[in-house]
Amino acid sequence: MKIVFIGAGNVATHLAWALKYQGHDIVQIYSRTKPSAQKLALKINTEFCTSLELLKEADMYIYAIADNALKSVISRLEFSSGMHIHTAGSVSIDVFENKFHNYGVLYPLQTFSKEKDVDFSVIPIFVEGNNEATTDVLFSIANSLSVKTFKATSDERIRLHIAAVFACNFTNYFYTIASELVQKSNIPFEILEPLIAETASKIKTLTPFDAQTGPARRNDVVTMNKQYDMIEDENQKLIYKFISSCITDKYKK
Amino acid sequence: MKIVFIGAGNVATHLAWALKYQGHDIVQIYSRTKPSAQKLALKINTEFCTSLELLKEADMYIYAIADNALKSVISRLEFSSGMHIHTAGSVSIDVFENKFHNYGVLYPLQTFSKEKDVDFSVIPIFVEGNNEATTDVLFSIANSLSVKTFKATSDERIRLHIAAVFACNFTNYFYTIASELVQKSNIPFEILEPLIAETASKIKTLTPFDAQTGPARRNDVVTMNKQYDMIEDENQKLIYKFISSCITDKYKK
Repeated sequence: MKIVFIGAGNVATHLAWALKYQGHDIVQIYSRTKPSAQKLALKINTEFCTSLELLKEADMYIYAIADNALKSVISRLEFSSGMHIHTAGSVSIDVFENKFHNYGVLYPLQTFSKEKDVDFSVIPIFVEGNNEATTDVLFSIANSLSVKTFKATSDERIRLHIAAVFACNFTNYFYTIASELVQKSNIPFEILEPLIAETASKIKTLTPFDAQTGPARRNDVVTMNKQYDMIEDENQKLIYKFISSCITDKYKK
Repeated sequence: MKIVFIGAGNVATHLAWALKYQGHDIVQIYSRTKPSAQKLALKINTEFCTSLELLKEADMYIYAIADNALKSVISRLEFSSGMHIHTAGSVSIDVFENKFHNYGVLYPLQTFSKEKDVDFSVIPIFVEGNNEATTDVLFSIANSLSVKTFKATSDERIRLHIAAVFACNFTNYFYTIASELVQKSNIPFEILEPLIAETASKIKTLTPFDAQTGPARRNDVVTMNKQYDMIEDENQKLIYKFISSCITDKYKK
C-alpha cells in the first residue's frame, strides 16, 4: 500500500517513521515549507513536494497537519481517489464528508516532539472509518504499529483529547513553571526529575485521587499563604491560588 | 544512634522504613492517634506512644508531622537534649530556635503515599543544621539513604517546595481531572498512562519549554473553543481557559 503524508511536523515525523519501520511504503511527503518537507523525506528516504497539485497517486493519504488547516487543505484537493485519514484528536471524521469515498481517523494518543524518540508499540491508537472496509484497513495499520488499538467515535476522541490536554500539555506547562522557580534559586531543574517521575508512576498503582499529596490536600493554610507570598510572577500566583483552592475543595468533601 | 519518630504519616512511614533498612536504630514512634502509631511501629518493629510526655530519650528526634503542627508540638516538649530534625519543605530551621541546642532539617524532595513504595536511593535530600556538627550528622544520615544529598538554606528549601507543588501536586490534580474526563466516556484511565509517562520522561532530554505541545502552544483557537465548550465542570472550564491562555502567551513571545 502506497502512503502519502500531508504534513511534516511532530506527528507526521514520528508516524511516518514508525510506518516506514513496519515496512509500509511511504511514497511522498507534502509540506507547505520546503525545509520541513525535505527533512522528513530525507529521514524516510522518499520524495517530497510543497504543492498540493503535485501529490502522487496513492492508496492512502495521511493528514498530520494543524487541526485548523485540515478543512482548507481538503477543499483544495482535486481528486477523490484513495483513502483519506487524519490524525487529529479534536476534528470529526466528517471533515472528509462529500469529498472522498473512503476516509477515517487514526489518532495516536501521545505527545510528539521531533527531537524525542518514542516507542510506538505502547501508544494507544484510536481508529474510526467511514465504512467497514476502511475501518479494517485502519485497524490493520494501527495493529502493525501498536499493541493497543481501539475503535473510537469522533465524540469519544474529542473527549480523550481534552483529557490528554490536562494530563500532558497542562502538566508540562507546570514543569515549565517549576523549572523557572528552581532556576531562580540557581538549582538545576534536574533535581525535580525523580519527583516528576514518581508522580507520573504513582498513578499506575494508586488512583490520582488517592495519590494526591501537598499543602492543598492537607488544607495547610499557613504553608499555602507562605508559598503564595513568595511567588513573584502574577500568573503563577493566580494559578497557585486557584488550583490550591480546587484541590482543597475536592478533599474537604 | 537512637532515633525517635514524631509522626506516623506518609513521610514518617517511608523515612522510618528507609532508615531502619539502612541499619539505623528507631526506638519509638509517636503519633497522636493510636492506630497510626501502632501501625508504623509494627512495620518498623519498634515501640510506640501517643503522648509526648512518654517520648524516650534518644540521640535524634525526627519530626514528620503537618507543617502547622510543628510549633505546637515543639513547645510542648519539656527537655532540650538530643538532635531535633524536621522534614518539612516550607518551615524554617528557626522553628527550633531557643528550644534545643542541636537542630536541623532533612527534606526529601519526593511525594510519599503510604501505599506506594519508593526507591529512596535516588531521592534528592536537602539538609540544613544549626551548627557544623549537626550538619555533618545530617549529611551522614542523608548519604546513607540517597546518592543525591545537598545543603540548602531554609529559603532555598521553601522555593524548592513551591516548585515541587507545581511539578507534583498540581500535576497530579490534573491527572485527577483527566481521569474524570475519560471516565465520563467510559474509557479507563489506564489508557492515559503511556502519555503521562512520556510527558514526564520527555523533560529528561528536552527542556519543558521545548517539550510543550498541544492546541494552546499552536494557538489553535478553533480546537481550544471546541474543547472549552465540551467541558461541563465549571472549575475545569476556568482552568482550561486560564492555563491555555498562559501557554499561548508564553509561546507568542
